[in-house]
Amino acid sequence: MATNAAARTMVNHQFRLAARPVGMVKRSDFSYVDEAVWEPKEGELLVKTIYISLDPAMRGWMNEGRSYVPGVAIGEVMRALALGKVLESKNAAFSAGDYVYGPFGVQEYPITNGQGITKVDPKIAPLPVYLGALGMPGMTAYFALLETGELKAGDVVVMSAAAGAVGSVAGQIAKIKGCSVVGIAGGPEKCRFVKEELGFDAAIDYKNEDVRKAIARHCPKGVDVYFDNVGGEILEGALANLALRGRVVLCGAISQYNTTAGIKGPSNYLSLLINRGTMRGMIVFDFAARYGEAAREMAGWIRAGKLKAKEHIVEGFEKFPETLAKLYKGENLGKLILKVGEE
Amino acid sequence: MATNAAARTMVNHQFRLAARPVGMVKRSDFSYVDEAVWEPKEGELLVKTIYISLDPAMRGWMNEGRSYVPGVAIGEVMRALALGKVLESKNAAFSAGDYVYGPFGVQEYPITNGQGITKVDPKIAPLPVYLGALGMPGMTAYFALLETGELKAGDVVVMSAAAGAVGSVAGQIAKIKGCSVVGIAGGPEKCRFVKEELGFDAAIDYKNEDVRKAIARHCPKGVDVYFDNVGGEILEGALANLALRGRVVLCGAISQYNTTAGIKGPSNYLSLLINRGTMRGMIVFDFAARYGEAAREMAGWIRAGKLKAKEHIVEGFEKFPETLAKLYKGENLGKLILKVGEE
Repeated sequence: MATNAAARTMVNHQFRLAARPVGMVKRSDFSYVDEAVWEPKEGELLVKTIYISLDPAMRGWMNEGRSYVPGVAIGEVMRALALGKVLESKNAAFSAGDYVYGPFGVQEYPITNGQGITKVDPKIAPLPVYLGALGMPGMTAYFALLETGELKAGDVVVMSAAAGAVGSVAGQIAKIKGCSVVGIAGGPEKCRFVKEELGFDAAIDYKNEDVRKAIARHCPKGVDVYFDNVGGEILEGALANLALRGRVVLCGAISQYNTTAGIKGPSNYLSLLINRGTMRGMIVFDFAARYGEAAREMAGWIRAGKLKAKEHIVEGFEKFPETLAKLYKGENLGKLILKVGEE
Repeated sequence: MATNAAARTMVNHQFRLAARPVGMVKRSDFSYVDEAVWEPKEGELLVKTIYISLDPAMRGWMNEGRSYVPGVAIGEVMRALALGKVLESKNAAFSAGDYVYGPFGVQEYPITNGQGITKVDPKIAPLPVYLGALGMPGMTAYFALLETGELKAGDVVVMSAAAGAVGSVAGQIAKIKGCSVVGIAGGPEKCRFVKEELGFDAAIDYKNEDVRKAIARHCPKGVDVYFDNVGGEILEGALANLALRGRVVLCGAISQYNTTAGIKGPSNYLSLLINRGTMRGMIVFDFAARYGEAAREMAGWIRAGKLKAKEHIVEGFEKFPETLAKLYKGENLGKLILKVGEE
């Protein structure tokens, strides 16, 4: 535990948004700032960041204007979910030594009033799991499939970004619920991971296969639920193979986030008409009141060995910009996390 | 009433599909054929066609391959819904003199076994209304809004092709259900019709206005239900203005049916994600078991003066190809019908 005095001599490294990115995110979109570590005021707590979560949504937060949440302003600390340890608390709900999870931003010593911050228990699951399977990606997977996608046993599910943080969990949930699951991922290593480690029924390597034909081959009766994290040609391939009353869950469009060519809409969206299909967007925050319920069920699956949590951890605070770019280049296997401190 | 002998000397003019159209439908896509009028066999009836329904879906039926129904084969009588009078019946369910509605095709003397044929009563509504407000377009309007679109009182509704067969009825149903309704139509005459004759709250002239901005101006709180018959830029304009949990009902994409450039998907489909919106396709045939219920309710609205049925009638069997093209050029006001015989 750092003492007050020690904390005052430490440096709060931060990445702040310096520019609206054009195309792929890059180091010059951020400024690296050293700030003093401030003393928490009454009601506040000082946290030492340990793990920073790297999420696809961050690219949208860097854009101008309002999406489902306001964008990050130029000069602001880059928004990020993170997990850390309380160093000093002037808030009765938290004590020094607590592990906490919340929107701390890309900085080493955040101060917060505790709003939107939850305590996590390292005895229930390793800390990184709280950023992945038991964090926002896991919650997204759970509610997107079970609520937005109206998943039912026997459904044929196609999972995009299947080796990613959300996809790897969602595909396993679909298996637990009695569905057959085809994962789409880039490259043989990810496809092997998806099939052999996660237990999906099949995997399609979008870098080396014709996705539309491969879905048709693996899903001869059509796709009941397509979980879209990517957009672009993979979305079109799934729409081309939609089953009658099939559902497309829109969770993201990572293939389109860093494009400068303008977003491409699915040219075969009329498959929704022909098949009486539904395409519906979901934002995980809408389910915040039910995170506890989902986390309890998923923690049970993890303990029972039915759900494997997989993290891809990169070490070093200063590597933040390049690590974020890895996400959009599809270089991660499982939940991508930046480790910036010791547990 | 024609006698058997007279029927045998009459000529059954037909339009048969001669070629898969490229771009806009044209006369050379059809062959004009004279056939003898056959004698109905046991269980069959001979009908004299009076009104042929011209529907946007016909363009899709002319394409190769299977959509929600198989396409029309080259050489087959062009598929069409029509209304006629029974000349001769060897089917106990029908009598000479009955008015009947069904998929008789583009021909003057169809013979049918009675399957999928319904009798209509000219005392309840004028015969052309059975092809429009009380026919497939009316059923489409009713179920697309109330079921697929989950319409509720107070919703802000935007109606594409508002002066057309489906749009003119759907917008009025939305008004009856307590919604505010903005219609989109091409040209000042249609806009005047939509606002002044049909009672929509506002009309947008897509030929002379920026649709996206006009929707934003008329619907400052966003669009709860967008009824899409057109696709293209108008669909994008509606998506750009979607309200939280807004619904897009996909009924058609007439702007895209005769294109040779390839269908354009909505580039801003991620508005569904941001707004937790739903885009869902509907095919009216799925609601066939409930047509009676809908027709009774709508006939009541017509009698009460709440729902105005509007038909655009062109006379002359030989004008079929050009009249069908009028539909895709947006030259009709209300339900487009070809009159090919006397009541």
